[in-house]
Amino acid sequence: MNALFDVAGLGNAIVDVIAKSDDAFLAKHGLAKGAMTLISAEQSDRLYDDMGPAIEISGGSAANTMVGVASLGGRAAYMGRVFADQLGQVFRHDIRAAGVHFDTAAAASGPPTARCLIFVTPDAQRTMQTYLGACVEFGPEDIDAATIEAAQISYLEGYLWDPPRAKEAFRAAMRIARAKGRRVALTLSDAFCVDRHRAEFLELVGSSLDIVFANEAEILSLWQVSNFDEAVRACQTHPGRIWAITRSEKGSVVIGNGLATHVPAERVERIVDTTGAGDLYASGFLHGLSRAQPLVECARLGHICAAEVIGHYGPRPEANLKSLVESRLR
Amino acid sequence: MNALFDVAGLGNAIVDVIAKSDDAFLAKHGLAKGAMTLISAEQSDRLYDDMGPAIEISGGSAANTMVGVASLGGRAAYMGRVFADQLGQVFRHDIRAAGVHFDTAAAASGPPTARCLIFVTPDAQRTMQTYLGACVEFGPEDIDAATIEAAQISYLEGYLWDPPRAKEAFRAAMRIARAKGRRVALTLSDAFCVDRHRAEFLELVGSSLDIVFANEAEILSLWQVSNFDEAVRACQTHPGRIWAITRSEKGSVVIGNGLATHVPAERVERIVDTTGAGDLYASGFLHGLSRAQPLVECARLGHICAAEVIGHYGPRPEANLKSLVESRLR
Repeated sequence: MNALFDVAGLGNAIVDVIAKSDDAFLAKHGLAKGAMTLISAEQSDRLYDDMGPAIEISGGSAANTMVGVASLGGRAAYMGRVFADQLGQVFRHDIRAAGVHFDTAAAASGPPTARCLIFVTPDAQRTMQTYLGACVEFGPEDIDAATIEAAQISYLEGYLWDPPRAKEAFRAAMRIARAKGRRVALTLSDAFCVDRHRAEFLELVGSSLDIVFANEAEILSLWQVSNFDEAVRACQTHPGRIWAITRSEKGSVVIGNGLATHVPAERVERIVDTTGAGDLYASGFLHGLSRAQPLVECARLGHICAAEVIGHYGPRPEANLKSLVESRLR
Repeated sequence: MNALFDVAGLGNAIVDVIAKSDDAFLAKHGLAKGAMTLISAEQSDRLYDDMGPAIEISGGSAANTMVGVASLGGRAAYMGRVFADQLGQVFRHDIRAAGVHFDTAAAASGPPTARCLIFVTPDAQRTMQTYLGACVEFGPEDIDAATIEAAQISYLEGYLWDPPRAKEAFRAAMRIARAKGRRVALTLSDAFCVDRHRAEFLELVGSSLDIVFANEAEILSLWQVSNFDEAVRACQTHPGRIWAITRSEKGSVVIGNGLATHVPAERVERIVDTTGAGDLYASGFLHGLSRAQPLVECARLGHICAAEVIGHYGPRPEANLKSLVESRLR
């Protein structure tokens, strides 16, 4: 059966609130630099009160990845829950306007649309504080089976383990995909997220996944090792999986059939804001996989997409990635 | 009496929704390129549906100008009406976080916070479609007399002539300022806005204003002449006013005591989005005036601020303007 979608993503549907910041601000509020931390509505309000002037841009890790796939010319779908409020309208508008199929109904009661306060320091590092809001309303009833069945790859956020019922949605999507012989990809999302859900992530790695995305901190956390080579060897003990492990300016390591290869990063002129780097790497990689490209080419596509998104504020591409890739690979 | 504020601004409180666009899109929707057009809620929704992925940034012409004054180290206040919704919270947060005194109560009933859909074409020109929303609730009861009395200069948007009762607020503020011997500045805002309200603007010029800001199209429209030199001569017939007339890359012409001087623009490396150029020119000019600088220096400050804001998306400065000015004038 032909796939109607190249990739279907599931994730927490979030609007990003992005402001320039400095290390003193992070220290004052005790924020863990570079990490994603979950906060309550009250904490979010208090932090926002002290935050500098901000811009609002639709975000959400898997949503960003799907926007990247669409910008590459791929057919992408997304599932995630917003509330029926202005930020929810913004999220819905932006992902659809980017060409991603998105039909999850907005919550009509409960908390407002999720927001992620992002503090970008002069070193371009981003520190994320997320109020999950309406994401806690996302559950298995929101899984559109036909879309999952029609997608070559289903792409799932590790972050979905945080809101109470989203992991059921995740497991439902995984079952549907596997029953149709489709591939399932997981991103480990964040090192602290791995800490919170390590046992379940390891169980998924052992049983149901085809592709795993991680950065260096996340893969070290998953295997609870302190050395990158050790982590790679641990991944190699699961030769049935594809592993794509990003290492910032050092590029990425891809592992398939137990073989590990290093792929260098793209040269970047100016790094402004690293928000979305991992998400857009996944866009390029998944797009390559859906086009049956060799893993090294998938990684290269990932690096080109990541390089675009870190050159400006915000987690979604400003350039048309299809044209960008064509110009880079010419 | 010492002034507690350097400048108090009055204007339509608006959140900008900014997307890249092209001339074909403007043509398809019959949008007047470079202009500000008022649209209904329904037109706004329709246009938004067809708009590309966007970013949300607080805007509003006089609000942008006040943020610029604050960024220059000046003491700025602002009055304008939002609704008690998420976009209203965004507006309030951003202007306060920028250091501007802002206390106007949010409307609790009536239409939502105003938004301006801004289409930025590859030539960096911006085309604005504004739904005034809660701005129509702004009236003389929102004027904080103590703030106007405490401000050296009150700065008023021509755009305030569009919502029904804002011009009453405008006139009330003007009366309060003049009774205290304070100065009153008006920006003509937009050539079509001048078309809509020419008779009243001319009456203000003849009776109550100290400082008038305009761009070339606006000043031609005010005097209904087709030639820039003619427009300058018409301004010179009002020697009691200060005129600051911007001409894009040609710089600006300042007129005081009937004497006109050309001031060249700042060199700009890359023009991304001209939204806010006039607003930030006014920031620099007003800041200079409040520091009793010569008019040519006021214009130069205006050009430095305008050059910053057109180098990135959005109508508010990303850099600290005080530091920027110090580095430029060193």
